[in-house]
Amino acid sequence: MSTVETELRIGLVGYAFMGAAHSQAWRTVNRVYDLPARARMAMICGRDSSKVADAATRLGWEGHTTDWRDLVARDDIDVIDVCTPGDSHAEIAVAALAAGKHVLCEKPLANSVQEARAMAAAAATAQAAGVRSMCGFNYRRVPAVTMMRDLVASGRLGTVRHVRAAYLQDWIVDPQYPLVWRLQKDRAGSGALGDIGAHIIDLTQYVTGQRITGVSAITETFVKERPLPVESTGLTAASGGDGTAVGVRTGPVTVDDAAVFVARLDGGALATYEASRFATGRKNALRVEINGSLGSLVFDLERLNELEFYDATEPTAEQGFTRILVTEADHPYLSAWWPPGHIIGYEHSFTHQMRDFLEAVATGVDPVPSFADALQVQLVLDAVVRSAALGSSWAEVEAVLAPVAA
Amino acid sequence: MSTVETELRIGLVGYAFMGAAHSQAWRTVNRVYDLPARARMAMICGRDSSKVADAATRLGWEGHTTDWRDLVARDDIDVIDVCTPGDSHAEIAVAALAAGKHVLCEKPLANSVQEARAMAAAAATAQAAGVRSMCGFNYRRVPAVTMMRDLVASGRLGTVRHVRAAYLQDWIVDPQYPLVWRLQKDRAGSGALGDIGAHIIDLTQYVTGQRITGVSAITETFVKERPLPVESTGLTAASGGDGTAVGVRTGPVTVDDAAVFVARLDGGALATYEASRFATGRKNALRVEINGSLGSLVFDLERLNELEFYDATEPTAEQGFTRILVTEADHPYLSAWWPPGHIIGYEHSFTHQMRDFLEAVATGVDPVPSFADALQVQLVLDAVVRSAALGSSWAEVEAVLAPVAA
Amino acid sequence: MSTVETELRIGLVGYAFMGAAHSQAWRTVNRVYDLPARARMAMICGRDSSKVADAATRLGWEGHTTDWRDLVARDDIDVIDVCTPGDSHAEIAVAALAAGKHVLCEKPLANSVQEARAMAAAAATAQAAGVRSMCGFNYRRVPAVTMMRDLVASGRLGTVRHVRAAYLQDWIVDPQYPLVWRLQKDRAGSGALGDIGAHIIDLTQYVTGQRITGVSAITETFVKERPLPVESTGLTAASGGDGTAVGVRTGPVTVDDAAVFVARLDGGALATYEASRFATGRKNALRVEINGSLGSLVFDLERLNELEFYDATEPTAEQGFTRILVTEADHPYLSAWWPPGHIIGYEHSFTHQMRDFLEAVATGVDPVPSFADALQVQLVLDAVVRSAALGSSWAEVEAVLAPVAA
Amino acid sequence: MSTVETELRIGLVGYAFMGAAHSQAWRTVNRVYDLPARARMAMICGRDSSKVADAATRLGWEGHTTDWRDLVARDDIDVIDVCTPGDSHAEIAVAALAAGKHVLCEKPLANSVQEARAMAAAAATAQAAGVRSMCGFNYRRVPAVTMMRDLVASGRLGTVRHVRAAYLQDWIVDPQYPLVWRLQKDRAGSGALGDIGAHIIDLTQYVTGQRITGVSAITETFVKERPLPVESTGLTAASGGDGTAVGVRTGPVTVDDAAVFVARLDGGALATYEASRFATGRKNALRVEINGSLGSLVFDLERLNELEFYDATEPTAEQGFTRILVTEADHPYLSAWWPPGHIIGYEHSFTHQMRDFLEAVATGVDPVPSFADALQVQLVLDAVVRSAALGSSWAEVEAVLAPVAA
Repeated sequence: MSTVETELRIGLVGYAFMGAAHSQAWRTVNRVYDLPARARMAMICGRDSSKVADAATRLGWEGHTTDWRDLVARDDIDVIDVCTPGDSHAEIAVAALAAGKHVLCEKPLANSVQEARAMAAAAATAQAAGVRSMCGFNYRRVPAVTMMRDLVASGRLGTVRHVRAAYLQDWIVDPQYPLVWRLQKDRAGSGALGDIGAHIIDLTQYVTGQRITGVSAITETFVKERPLPVESTGLTAASGGDGTAVGVRTGPVTVDDAAVFVARLDGGALATYEASRFATGRKNALRVEINGSLGSLVFDLERLNELEFYDATEPTAEQGFTRILVTEADHPYLSAWWPPGHIIGYEHSFTHQMRDFLEAVATGVDPVPSFADALQVQLVLDAVVRSAALGSSWAEVEAVLAPVAA
Repeated sequence: MSTVETELRIGLVGYAFMGAAHSQAWRTVNRVYDLPARARMAMICGRDSSKVADAATRLGWEGHTTDWRDLVARDDIDVIDVCTPGDSHAEIAVAALAAGKHVLCEKPLANSVQEARAMAAAAATAQAAGVRSMCGFNYRRVPAVTMMRDLVASGRLGTVRHVRAAYLQDWIVDPQYPLVWRLQKDRAGSGALGDIGAHIIDLTQYVTGQRITGVSAITETFVKERPLPVESTGLTAASGGDGTAVGVRTGPVTVDDAAVFVARLDGGALATYEASRFATGRKNALRVEINGSLGSLVFDLERLNELEFYDATEPTAEQGFTRILVTEADHPYLSAWWPPGHIIGYEHSFTHQMRDFLEAVATGVDPVPSFADALQVQLVLDAVVRSAALGSSWAEVEAVLAPVAA
Repeated sequence: MSTVETELRIGLVGYAFMGAAHSQAWRTVNRVYDLPARARMAMICGRDSSKVADAATRLGWEGHTTDWRDLVARDDIDVIDVCTPGDSHAEIAVAALAAGKHVLCEKPLANSVQEARAMAAAAATAQAAGVRSMCGFNYRRVPAVTMMRDLVASGRLGTVRHVRAAYLQDWIVDPQYPLVWRLQKDRAGSGALGDIGAHIIDLTQYVTGQRITGVSAITETFVKERPLPVESTGLTAASGGDGTAVGVRTGPVTVDDAAVFVARLDGGALATYEASRFATGRKNALRVEINGSLGSLVFDLERLNELEFYDATEPTAEQGFTRILVTEADHPYLSAWWPPGHIIGYEHSFTHQMRDFLEAVATGVDPVPSFADALQVQLVLDAVVRSAALGSSWAEVEAVLAPVAA
Repeated sequence: MSTVETELRIGLVGYAFMGAAHSQAWRTVNRVYDLPARARMAMICGRDSSKVADAATRLGWEGHTTDWRDLVARDDIDVIDVCTPGDSHAEIAVAALAAGKHVLCEKPLANSVQEARAMAAAAATAQAAGVRSMCGFNYRRVPAVTMMRDLVASGRLGTVRHVRAAYLQDWIVDPQYPLVWRLQKDRAGSGALGDIGAHIIDLTQYVTGQRITGVSAITETFVKERPLPVESTGLTAASGGDGTAVGVRTGPVTVDDAAVFVARLDGGALATYEASRFATGRKNALRVEINGSLGSLVFDLERLNELEFYDATEPTAEQGFTRILVTEADHPYLSAWWPPGHIIGYEHSFTHQMRDFLEAVATGVDPVPSFADALQVQLVLDAVVRSAALGSSWAEVEAVLAPVAA
């Protein structure tokens, strides 16, 4: 790590959707926030040499490489930011931690519990050496979500009774949408469940401070065969509807299109969860409602500047859901942005994430969510898969800390 | 039944919440609709002689009695309208059908599958003699709900993929709310599940034309002991919060406060259901969303004059959820009411129900939902109870027509 | 007036849209509220003998007549309810008051200031003899509107700074919609201005407790010639779009299609008003927002069970518009209706109006709004017309009490 | 201008709210869009040497200066971006154009018609030499607003009948909020009218393609005296509520707190406009509704990713306001951003503005809105001021091209 007026030299792995979003955040974070460390956009890494060179120019990285192992080995890199598909998270992150690099890893942490356990173990080892790690559940840093957590933590909702969470998209409703990597189990690990279901699992546990103890689940793949893409990167793969991007050959969809489950939380709450890419008309609809004995909260990611809060301690005739426009200077993260009512967007959650990551690393504390936190989400995903595989029977969520014998 | 210009003499059993709602509808229906039969508000029946006399005067019934057996036996009554708690539905309805009276019975049809089977059998027998029966799932007659059914039936949603339904209330969040009959299993059969969960089961099956085949469920009673009421009738029982309506003694709550379950429908859809009386801030929030391959529908009973429709066959850039104000003359039931934009209320669903009931009886056809339809809902409720009792394992919904051997 | 347990025998003049709405309310009011007087639906009056006979049967009136003078003269009528077009309000109401009948007169009170002054004078004279009069600005009795008034009156909004009010409809956007009576100045007095503009003038003055002192206005008739109807009654006149209800002849539209004006109120507030029948997609959209130094209120008649309240005395980070579902027992008029969340409709405003009218008459107090209040609204309408006629110059609103010399 | 792969060296004047917003946009625009020119953040200019140095570092400008005349004179600057208060717009912009620099000037163009005319004349002269100019009405570049314009222009709304526009804020409701420059006529020109009223004038004229021909207006200053600030910059001036930022001395507020007016547009539409800083609870609520003979549009800046569209050519029973989530790749400006449903924020309107500006300059066409367009807005503001000064009498909007004699 560089000295004096800490500079952290970032090495980003991946240049698709997440790579672009992280680049925007690294570029912006020190322009908006006064922080004890400055991010330097040092190197970007991707497998296609031409594309990664283009990405470096367009996104503003000083250098580029096609070899993540080289990146991890360099002396002039302080942070590895992992934005690849899930099948390479474990290998890259573990190597980076071993090389003494701080790691920010996109969610879900890994494609399997086994990998996630290895990563959490590596993070714990690295932590002893002052090397930090964090998993990118960026929605925790949407100001309205942070505010939800604060309201619950301060007791404003009383005892939490109900969680209802759904993350709904519709980008593969068309059966001609091609078989991109996100629809292949060996690359993505799972489908809607790991991609977007992981977000609502993390978000609701974060907000309520309660952990899911068990689930009964159904998963489904509505469209079982899709045309193979000529080429695909991330969500931007052109739909096959126009006849150009897909070929005549098809392949099997090996992940879930949708997952639904009921759950119990360790604080006594009941919950329903749903993750789907087949919710026609819902584009990025992460919706969460929490009901407590003293109040309720409602959040919708498509209106991420708003939070609805019901305060049951108000006089009965004046109770109602208050639509709070979360853009005031005394709302989380917002003092650095625009005047009240001037809304922020999706990308700002990443800027906020980078702010907290930089601050934690510079001040020598562990950022959250940790790899262990992300492992716990992985264990919930695993319980969902197990329940679905066993005809929707009840599946307990395994403990993060496995027995000694294991 | 009276002759010429058919008059149907109604005998209503029950004068609490449902009794008042039905009275309002019987009083109004022929003032609004031109129908082949006229309802005459002949007799009202209730156990407390003073109260039923008051109710008759206030609600506009010609006569009153405290003995439902007497009511059922009278020659000058054509229709028995059952608005009592669930524990007396079966006995009254079966006796009425045996006496040749047409029967309208509130939902849920009964407190057990056994009772419901007996009622469906009695209805089938009576039907052969031209005696009609119907269960009061009144929300089918909310114009927006009828319109949902019509849109799905005409193929506008394509293949239905997802159902998400919740019926949320909050009237017993306060632990001092008294132990009214709706919280006692021997009277009410079940709690939120049968009272409001039954509505969303019926409504979603009606709208999608699909039947639930199996469920995994959790039920919960959050507040297990409550003060005994000095007196209680229906939902209007005064809250114990003011210290007057409840005594110092308490009793056990023997029904569920909330029920959540995932389900499969026979057309291939996945579903989530939730019924709760602990959703703080939600007063009568029956919310249903249906996603199909060609479109989606969203309904909220607290805004019952509105229906949101997403039509995925429109040009991409113009797609969105269209908020239809269901108050036009060419919307279901509405040509008889007010000009566009002049909204109707909760009670109108009953007026519409009475319209369809009167018309069916007068023209000699069987009204829907039939007792058999309502039995099927009861079988779903039963599957939910069984799943919850067996640790949220999967429970198949029994067939309405039991095997001969049974 | 009849004796003992006061019965008030109602004579209704008019059987179209308003006649039906008032009938529904008279039929319902004593079934829902415990009141010191009972309304008896005695006589209905209309010009077409066949139609009025049908209306009597359908709407539930004991008798009928085609001669309002006869109705007014009868000994067995206590109340005259005037639901005719505006050109006959003055003559009927003045005659009824002179005959000692209590009068409920639909809005706007009259078609001219001159008529309205005569009616207010007649009401003042009758008042001395214990004869009551009231103008039917029914929206004052929407519970959310009454609640707005109460909140402003109790100081919760502080000093009112802004009023923005619009009443938007779209039923004559089609140029082939026929020339019904509401589009003819000699019958209706004015167009959107008097029909729906009058409502927002009354409502905002009622809610704020402030009176409009002057206006600058624009009025417009977008479609100046329309096909003559073969027959028309009220809003239900069939659109000419289908080619059946209108003939080949056309006639001039002699009223405004839309009126917009800015205004000052006597408490210092600025206001904008708009009334239009050309607001495509707005069916019955009466929308009012009030901003005060301590808070704000928002109301929309198409969601009449809701009121949005912003309380600027709450902590900054928790401020927002609270959507109050105005269906609680401690909300105005609602203790007699259904449980929380079970919404009411447009027609209930009339039931509430009849409740207050019956109670006032029975207890010997003057109901509001009085004819003098309605005259004041007429004076505002007149100022709007004068301003528009003089090229949108400023027009002061005349005083209700004219100088002695006048 | 630099050669090959055009680079445009930007000189920004002003480092407060607008300066920060523009900096964010200049920094981002080439990272997101492929453009024929690249913006180089060369110099920032401000009066306070310490603050401008800090701003340069924080916002990412290569150099800084306190002398705008020096900036304008430099050879290594291609574009002058004017973000100062209105009183210096004319002097800086005219000098910059004379020096051959392209100019982007914040709105309102000037503090008076006279200044605006001089600027428009200077722009016309410079245009002949290939020097470009543009006024920063950034909301035209909100994708939903651009889409509104496109829908109206393509005839989807038919004949536009109504415009209702309001831009509502509440940041000075507190009488102790200090007398910042925006409340002083000599600095700001006008108050709510020029600051936010100018936006809705431009936006509605842009969307409808119609120009305002005349107005009747009321303006008001509710709080006439305010505490003097110890120091203030832009909107971020600390409220005096905490007693620290303001002194004991007060000064007169010399601008309007609110302005309301009715207007006629040259295409026959009626309009209402309102600009206020006293609309409690409204933070940045720019709301516009357009009603046409075939449809309607509704936009709200606080939900800037959404557009409501009513299409009256759809079947009656399916008509309604469609909430379009304007985040699709085929929506204006959005192909470069995130996947559908991932919303953008307020700042993106500036990035889009810079995109269009860079593209126009690089390809040698005149960007819009031109200084002449902005002059026309100034003429509307002037008509509003004249009408208000003459007791809300009608004021015609002067023509942009003054008679020769002038």
